[in-house]
Amino acid sequence: MIKHFIYADHAATTMLLPEALEAMLPFLRTEYGNASTLYSLARKPKKAIAAARAAIAKCIGAEPDEIFFTSCGTESDNWALKGTAFRFLGQKKRIITSSIEHHAVLHSCAFLERMGYDVVYLPVDEKGLVSPADLEKAINEATVLVSIMMANNEIGTIEPIAELAEVAHKYGVLFHTDAVQAVGHLPINVNHLCVDMLSASAHKFNGPKGMGFLYVRKGTPLLNLLDGGAQENGHRGGTENVAGIVGMSEALKFNVENMQKHTEHLLNLQHLFIKELDRSGFDYVLNGSEERIPGSFSISFPNREGEAILHRLDLMGVAVTTGSACNSKETVISHVLKAIDLPDTLAKGTVRFTFGFENTEEEVKYVANYIAKILK
Amino acid sequence: MIKHFIYADHAATTMLLPEALEAMLPFLRTEYGNASTLYSLARKPKKAIAAARAAIAKCIGAEPDEIFFTSCGTESDNWALKGTAFRFLGQKKRIITSSIEHHAVLHSCAFLERMGYDVVYLPVDEKGLVSPADLEKAINEATVLVSIMMANNEIGTIEPIAELAEVAHKYGVLFHTDAVQAVGHLPINVNHLCVDMLSASAHKFNGPKGMGFLYVRKGTPLLNLLDGGAQENGHRGGTENVAGIVGMSEALKFNVENMQKHTEHLLNLQHLFIKELDRSGFDYVLNGSEERIPGSFSISFPNREGEAILHRLDLMGVAVTTGSACNSKETVISHVLKAIDLPDTLAKGTVRFTFGFENTEEEVKYVANYIAKILK
Repeated sequence: MIKHFIYADHAATTMLLPEALEAMLPFLRTEYGNASTLYSLARKPKKAIAAARAAIAKCIGAEPDEIFFTSCGTESDNWALKGTAFRFLGQKKRIITSSIEHHAVLHSCAFLERMGYDVVYLPVDEKGLVSPADLEKAINEATVLVSIMMANNEIGTIEPIAELAEVAHKYGVLFHTDAVQAVGHLPINVNHLCVDMLSASAHKFNGPKGMGFLYVRKGTPLLNLLDGGAQENGHRGGTENVAGIVGMSEALKFNVENMQKHTEHLLNLQHLFIKELDRSGFDYVLNGSEERIPGSFSISFPNREGEAILHRLDLMGVAVTTGSACNSKETVISHVLKAIDLPDTLAKGTVRFTFGFENTEEEVKYVANYIAKILK
Repeated sequence: MIKHFIYADHAATTMLLPEALEAMLPFLRTEYGNASTLYSLARKPKKAIAAARAAIAKCIGAEPDEIFFTSCGTESDNWALKGTAFRFLGQKKRIITSSIEHHAVLHSCAFLERMGYDVVYLPVDEKGLVSPADLEKAINEATVLVSIMMANNEIGTIEPIAELAEVAHKYGVLFHTDAVQAVGHLPINVNHLCVDMLSASAHKFNGPKGMGFLYVRKGTPLLNLLDGGAQENGHRGGTENVAGIVGMSEALKFNVENMQKHTEHLLNLQHLFIKELDRSGFDYVLNGSEERIPGSFSISFPNREGEAILHRLDLMGVAVTTGSACNSKETVISHVLKAIDLPDTLAKGTVRFTFGFENTEEEVKYVANYIAKILK
């Protein structure tokens, strides 16, 4: 028998790793000292923050002082975009991004347009890929920043970040990547990727909600987004969320240490899921590129209603989503599905399944078989 | 006998209320659903967020949809200042604040000066009070916002917010107050205070670190600081930190429900502390106004080194601070003590004691007596 609840929406959020919670608890109980104070009660929080910063840096091939703690991926994205744009206020005004970015990037760009910046939204092909040639054409002398996501949250497509960053750097332009869906799930080395900034969110890799970080390569010109105290080397104010920082670090270490095992497991589930769907014989289209986040599927069922499928699955204890979680309050077709030029008849019947390391073969089969029942 | 550790730095941070942690734990364990999704796993997080929003609103006399969750007081302050300033970009450029604000406000103002805004820093008197007459003189037609803190973090002085807000509104100018030190400790009703925006930080009232809120009166023109998804009614992106929101709400309810009891207890400790200090016969100056946050003291010991006293107290298990926690990495005299025109001989020997509801008479006596020993 299947257990009651199957979580297949890991791109929306993930469960907090129990070991991460354990590591957080002392800082939610007796070790409540403000890490920026001078007395003994600050010692353990201060040490824990330093250790977490070093561990996180190591996970992405960075130096500890290149990691800046934030409250979420959205803050990291806003910081990278607005902090760079404002740094070059009155000097450079073009920002280049893609049409399939998360709203944290797209809406930051809309804000900057209002402030007088000129934003170019690069198109993507039917797999969701940004073309380095398109990027090269869009760069002009006024370009301050290129921001392209590492992996898309709706269709899982992995962008050619190293190639894109190379193009930007050829023209002396800074490069940021929103790696919220990638960190903890794909191998990341900021030096191989050649990025100047990289955004991450803890709750996407089994860390706590309300926690993220921004990697900023040494020497990158960037103004603060949250001005205040001397925390984060004077670059991000606010009393340190020690528990959140520790939880994020534990969760990331766990996912990076087990990445190969998790990837193999997820590719196996991926294979199984497709095999089961194919066996059922109904029509479907798998969106995105071949290079996707392991275990993630955006599947379009022709002439079906994605939301109806979502609710039927929910009744059977299966959690999936129809768009990205962040815009699920709206019923319009997502900007990502529009950007890959998916026909409306397919777009409306699109369901996102994102499996995680804790999903089992049995669960994946159950989901596939239940979809077959719904579609009949 | 005294217990080993006496925490007398409640203005820096407070312990997380055990009951708040208990309320948070389900959301750090099984109830990890993303509150913005459409399936059953989102139900409890969504309900918990709505309940927390309503409870917090009630604590300050606001409507639930006037409460916006943020990651800290610093974010709330940055949002209020930058969001208002940018809303009137190219139209109005003066911002008026005081010279004793927290760095979250002062450094946001410095950022806005860099962006071309004109910031007026009002002086304070020797008690740290901002004068409504000075404010009135500083307002001109280009003024977009006045931001004055409700209670100072170093000297505890409570500003005449209702009077100051009245002056601002007389000229049609928006009013924000950084109430980070006040919320949970002083009675607050946003309508009696007549403020348009109010910042708060959970960890200052026994809630979790990494959590805050901004009250925004309905109809206040304000741009987003963190653009992104549809969370917070489209005004602050980022997956909701459900545990943090619930913990903040529980902590605030507890402090507001027990405010009278806590205040009486703290005024008693205050009386006792002064009596004990006086009994010891050494010289000291008590900074700030008579109207201070209950249980808070900024005390200057002439010709002494505050940091030396801090370390001696720390050795005896007593946690205090010499400046505000946020700038304790610097050894310069704080901007607040400079603004109240305290002579250097006093400023250097200034120690801040901020007691909380859990401190006892015995602890306060112990601290006072130990200071006497140090000074001898």
